[in-house]
Amino acid sequence: MQHDGFRGVLVPVATPFGDDLAPDRTALIAHCRWLLEQGADGLALFGTTSEANSLGGDERMALLEAVVEAGIPAQRLMPGTGACALTDAARLSAHAVGLGCGGVLMLPPFYYKGVAEEGLCAFFAEVIERVGDARLRLYLYHIPPVAQVGIPSTLLGRLASRYPGTLAGVKDSSGDWEHTARLLAEYPQLEIFPGSEAFLLQGLRHGAAGCITATGNVNPAGIRAIYAGWQEAQADALQARAGALRRAVQAHPVIPAVKALLARIHGTAGWRRVRPPLVALPEDAEAVLLDAVGAAGLALP
Amino acid sequence: MQHDGFRGVLVPVATPFGDDLAPDRTALIAHCRWLLEQGADGLALFGTTSEANSLGGDERMALLEAVVEAGIPAQRLMPGTGACALTDAARLSAHAVGLGCGGVLMLPPFYYKGVAEEGLCAFFAEVIERVGDARLRLYLYHIPPVAQVGIPSTLLGRLASRYPGTLAGVKDSSGDWEHTARLLAEYPQLEIFPGSEAFLLQGLRHGAAGCITATGNVNPAGIRAIYAGWQEAQADALQARAGALRRAVQAHPVIPAVKALLARIHGTAGWRRVRPPLVALPEDAEAVLLDAVGAAGLALP
Repeated sequence: MQHDGFRGVLVPVATPFGDDLAPDRTALIAHCRWLLEQGADGLALFGTTSEANSLGGDERMALLEAVVEAGIPAQRLMPGTGACALTDAARLSAHAVGLGCGGVLMLPPFYYKGVAEEGLCAFFAEVIERVGDARLRLYLYHIPPVAQVGIPSTLLGRLASRYPGTLAGVKDSSGDWEHTARLLAEYPQLEIFPGSEAFLLQGLRHGAAGCITATGNVNPAGIRAIYAGWQEAQADALQARAGALRRAVQAHPVIPAVKALLARIHGTAGWRRVRPPLVALPEDAEAVLLDAVGAAGLALP
Repeated sequence: MQHDGFRGVLVPVATPFGDDLAPDRTALIAHCRWLLEQGADGLALFGTTSEANSLGGDERMALLEAVVEAGIPAQRLMPGTGACALTDAARLSAHAVGLGCGGVLMLPPFYYKGVAEEGLCAFFAEVIERVGDARLRLYLYHIPPVAQVGIPSTLLGRLASRYPGTLAGVKDSSGDWEHTARLLAEYPQLEIFPGSEAFLLQGLRHGAAGCITATGNVNPAGIRAIYAGWQEAQADALQARAGALRRAVQAHPVIPAVKALLARIHGTAGWRRVRPPLVALPEDAEAVLLDAVGAAGLALP
């Protein structure tokens, strides 16, 4: 009962900032275009890699409008619309649906820890009811290493039966293959996206829809090649190659490292900026990173 | 070099909701008045107990305006203005300062975990610069059990020397007396508030300014009595009595338990409501709670 949803490699698009730390719309739109040209199947704007929670709701909505107005197809967008307050999550989601986005990727409310599944269920149900739009395609975002609050597997079952067609899938950034494998086995009706290309090939072999991955910002073509060729002889070699590049990036704080690489790729020094509380990659670490990604096969301008 | 700041018992005011889960301004204002009549020295609106992060920024600002317009003295208000996005934290703080609030209580940005002290320092510095108002009195909110991201003690030193007079104090909800004692010893120029009356008497004996405590919502007079009488013979007995009541509340999820008690105190069933992801106290647990707080000496209507 797979509906027409997202498949392939989605990128949580990094957000460029000007020297006043305001989002740089022009640079963001250019990066979105480049990612699609490089083969990205979808753009998960406002994810963890996008520093979405370091942006205000109005900033996120203005950026999304700018991206859609620039001609990026809204059906290929899966913006993050999660928030600690259900009013904010509902407002951002309704806005994204209104713009025609193919889906929204929603964090659980992440301030209170140890909340009951019943409370999480009530939160998502209230957001769905407030959006009140049959076009809503909701992807839940499980990232316990950062949010601390996860999406219990049993919650997926409850929401899938209560809102069939609306609950569309999950991004699983647990980093735990056993967890992803269980979701794939238990919820064949949902689109399951591992939160990294480390599990892309393994995931596809078990029915995953693709992956949503930070390093897709800098290696979209290399990761897309795994998706395109996963049933072919070279699949494991492609996976190994992307894995080597990923490890070179992961040796550093990932978001600053991705942005340092984007500064090279797009030839714009400003891409290095992050919003506090993140810290830009120091110059010496950037030099180490550039050597390592070069050795892993990434050709930089 | 203690400036005129806050002293005594501050209450992180619980937020009442209507049946549409919108904040109930009338009930909030009535509760603020009751707390001040009962002896509360200050009102820390929009704290953890207030479900502040379950409210949107616009909701918080509208409530604050309503409270001030109702005649609650702004100088006795220390609203929470923390947020994951520095733009939101700056906007909420500037708004509170503009209304004449005596201070603001600021969480660190709490989405990204394991952030560098340098990044937290840049965050708070950027917020202070954006507010750009000499009237700002900033209290930092250290609550690692919930926010996971704490306020490193060394960060206090950096901000205190860079922004003397602006950095006014700390709420320490670590629940770790040794940590509070270190802050008291290291930063005599700051107002240090343990985040619970459990450490009120001990804190006052070591130079604390008072406490900011959830159970102040239901036992303001009992806790205020410790502050008033801390140098007198009965101080330890008053502390023990408040402690027994606190333990009766803490046997349940604290926010729903506080709200169940407020439903009795104010005679309004709606006070029991919480916003998801929190869950209201079940009836059977409420019965246990009422028995226990009665046994601990709380007289309820």
